Amino acid sequence: MKLELSRVVQGGSRLGVLKGLGRTGQHSLDVPGCLLYTRCGSAPHLTQDTLHTLSTLPSVTQVTLSTIAEHQEVLEECKDGFKKFAGLHETVLYCSLHDPAAPCPTGHTTNKTVSVWGSGGRIELSVAKFMALQRAVRPDWYQSMADGETWQENTSRKRVRKSVDRTLAHLDECLLVHHNTQELEGVEVFGVVEGGDILEERVRSARETAKRPVSGFCLDGLQTGSMNQSLRTQLITAVTQELPEDKPRLLQGVGRPDEVLACVEAGVDLFESFFPFQVTERGCALCFSLDVSPDPELAVLRDDEERDTAGETQENGDLNHSDQTQMTSFEIDLNEKRYHDDFRPLVEGCGCYCCRNHQRAYLHHLLVTNELLAGVLLMIHNAAHYHAFFAALREALADGKLDLLKRRLLGERRAETGTKD
Amino acid sequence: MKLELSRVVQGGSRLGVLKGLGRTGQHSLDVPGCLLYTRCGSAPHLTQDTLHTLSTLPSVTQVTLSTIAEHQEVLEECKDGFKKFAGLHETVLYCSLHDPAAPCPTGHTTNKTVSVWGSGGRIELSVAKFMALQRAVRPDWYQSMADGETWQENTSRKRVRKSVDRTLAHLDECLLVHHNTQELEGVEVFGVVEGGDILEERVRSARETAKRPVSGFCLDGLQTGSMNQSLRTQLITAVTQELPEDKPRLLQGVGRPDEVLACVEAGVDLFESFFPFQVTERGCALCFSLDVSPDPELAVLRDDEERDTAGETQENGDLNHSDQTQMTSFEIDLNEKRYHDDFRPLVEGCGCYCCRNHQRAYLHHLLVTNELLAGVLLMIHNAAHYHAFFAALREALADGKLDLLKRRLLGERRAETGTKD
Repeated sequence: MKLELSRVVQGGSRLGVLKGLGRTGQHSLDVPGCLLYTRCGSAPHLTQDTLHTLSTLPSVTQVTLSTIAEHQEVLEECKDGFKKFAGLHETVLYCSLHDPAAPCPTGHTTNKTVSVWGSGGRIELSVAKFMALQRAVRPDWYQSMADGETWQENTSRKRVRKSVDRTLAHLDECLLVHHNTQELEGVEVFGVVEGGDILEERVRSARETAKRPVSGFCLDGLQTGSMNQSLRTQLITAVTQELPEDKPRLLQGVGRPDEVLACVEAGVDLFESFFPFQVTERGCALCFSLDVSPDPELAVLRDDEERDTAGETQENGDLNHSDQTQMTSFEIDLNEKRYHDDFRPLVEGCGCYCCRNHQRAYLHHLLVTNELLAGVLLMIHNAAHYHAFFAALREALADGKLDLLKRRLLGERRAETGTKD
Repeated sequence: MKLELSRVVQGGSRLGVLKGLGRTGQHSLDVPGCLLYTRCGSAPHLTQDTLHTLSTLPSVTQVTLSTIAEHQEVLEECKDGFKKFAGLHETVLYCSLHDPAAPCPTGHTTNKTVSVWGSGGRIELSVAKFMALQRAVRPDWYQSMADGETWQENTSRKRVRKSVDRTLAHLDECLLVHHNTQELEGVEVFGVVEGGDILEERVRSARETAKRPVSGFCLDGLQTGSMNQSLRTQLITAVTQELPEDKPRLLQGVGRPDEVLACVEAGVDLFESFFPFQVTERGCALCFSLDVSPDPELAVLRDDEERDTAGETQENGDLNHSDQTQMTSFEIDLNEKRYHDDFRPLVEGCGCYCCRNHQRAYLHHLLVTNELLAGVLLMIHNAAHYHAFFAALREALADGKLDLLKRRLLGERRAETGTKD
């Protein structure tokens, strides 16, 4: 894995390509970028064939241990690893600990173990079990074991310190097993930066993790719902200053477009793409402009017309974890009656299968009659739109128009919600 | 619509082609055959593109008024009819009254109206409203309005007689409106044969309906759960003797392969294909042999090996309506633990997308972790297998091997359930 940066703003956004991915090293991923979110290896609702009709598909597939931990035996029996088991097409496989779209109960972490929740309940992972799972999954790249239970407000300084210490200890143990495991030769490990909302602990975690032989860094405990964006930006900025320039930084649990932009400006390279799935599950469609046209006023106006009566749209606050399931201003709610005779595509000009073939009225109809196709079609569009957002973000970075894209997104939010950012 | 029969067993099975379908008359459908089951125009879980990866897709799409009645206004506004609204590819559209896979409450039929249930509750249809809906839907072919509330055991003779009278009256009224509606020019109407379980009423209904200018016949009130197969066969045989040879007979609400075979032998041409959807919803996969090999013993043995320990399999009795949701002996339950390390495809040699790309173990994994892809993959396989069953059925008819196919199916059932048929 090798990060080649083509444009870096001092202490800020980075544009480049992550090269040499996969065991044979032939894959690459543009940054800032996102990984492909999956559950059990499948993009929710979509077959591999349907998925591959999307034009800008991330080259890295994320699978989480929480969805596969209870199937360790089968994976071991299957021998060829998870990619073969799940029938995945050619892709780079990244294995993380928790599912960013599933809430994870707290209070079950010990000095020696962390827990994940499968369909059958809690599964406790020691480093030995964690590494045995990685051996069975055979990813190209995985997140080291980590104690991330510090995202809740009012977590004590002592608890945060313990989480940083434990996570470093886990990393050392994982690396030890890793280097003694033949099957994991050539597989990349990301160290995990913890530290809750305490700046010194964040810096310490980053500095210590950077001393280890890792390929990159996961920034954990900063997810939507755990803190507001200004604190998140402050922490990330401090953290990235401690990290080497030439290794990628993956931020966990943040997916909202405005937050993504702010985090890119703080030096984040990679994101998880669970956000379009959450939007899909509430029957909504991503519908925000990716257009950085020379006349933003005009574009905003056009967009306002599109959404100015979306009365139900509400600001997605920052301090409540449950907000992750609430609608944001970047989407329209197809359940609303107003779409019952709207014969336009979800997004005018969108080239996805859903927009090319169906109208909002039909999506509304599928949703109110609870038809199973609704999720499939929305997932196609939302994934396509979200990946296109990252492409637009990179283009804006390359053209020095990030501010413009940001103003467009924030402006839209302000117009929607009447709040100041 | 023109039925060309190539092989007819006196008073029994018919092999042929239904030609001249669609407004331009360029479509055809082999009989015995099935229609494509949809909800709101979509095969459950599948996009049109995914659907069209199936190799033997019926040329006729069935949509039911119950799933679209509450959207009459939108359809009228949309003007181009349901095919355009639902983004359907080139297909013949057949519109029926009720969804064969959804239970329909009884006790709401009056002399002048029938009711369907949408997501918002009951919708009462007079002939005027029914015909206005057809005008908005613009099918190529539709079922006339009918009072089918006689499928329950112990329905009185008086009630059955009333249902036949009402259904004939509805037909006459529908035909009157039909012939005065320009938008319905060239659209075909099927008359509905009622009569509950009373032979004389069945015969009367068939004889009277056959006198009307209809293109074919729906046999209603004979669905799985309403009566056993021997009574059903007896009634269908009596009915088909009253119907003209050159018009197709569509049996409503029967989908189980053994019942389909018996009904084909009684002279039925067309079926609805809701059965694979029901199988999918319970997490099962159709897994019965379509092979009419010269050595059936051998084939049965091979198949028994496949399923002999399927302990959960139970006989789907005939008298209880709720049985429609129970597993039959034609499927395997992928939820069962025994499939967790079964690395075979659902059906060896099946060419569907699911069987080409995935193993039983992965399907089991998707089901137990409640992943959304499970329904998509199972629906693909089950639809493919069910359509292949009809192809095998026609081939067996052409080769005079229907008995062999029947023995195979019945033999398998007997071996499974230990019952005599």
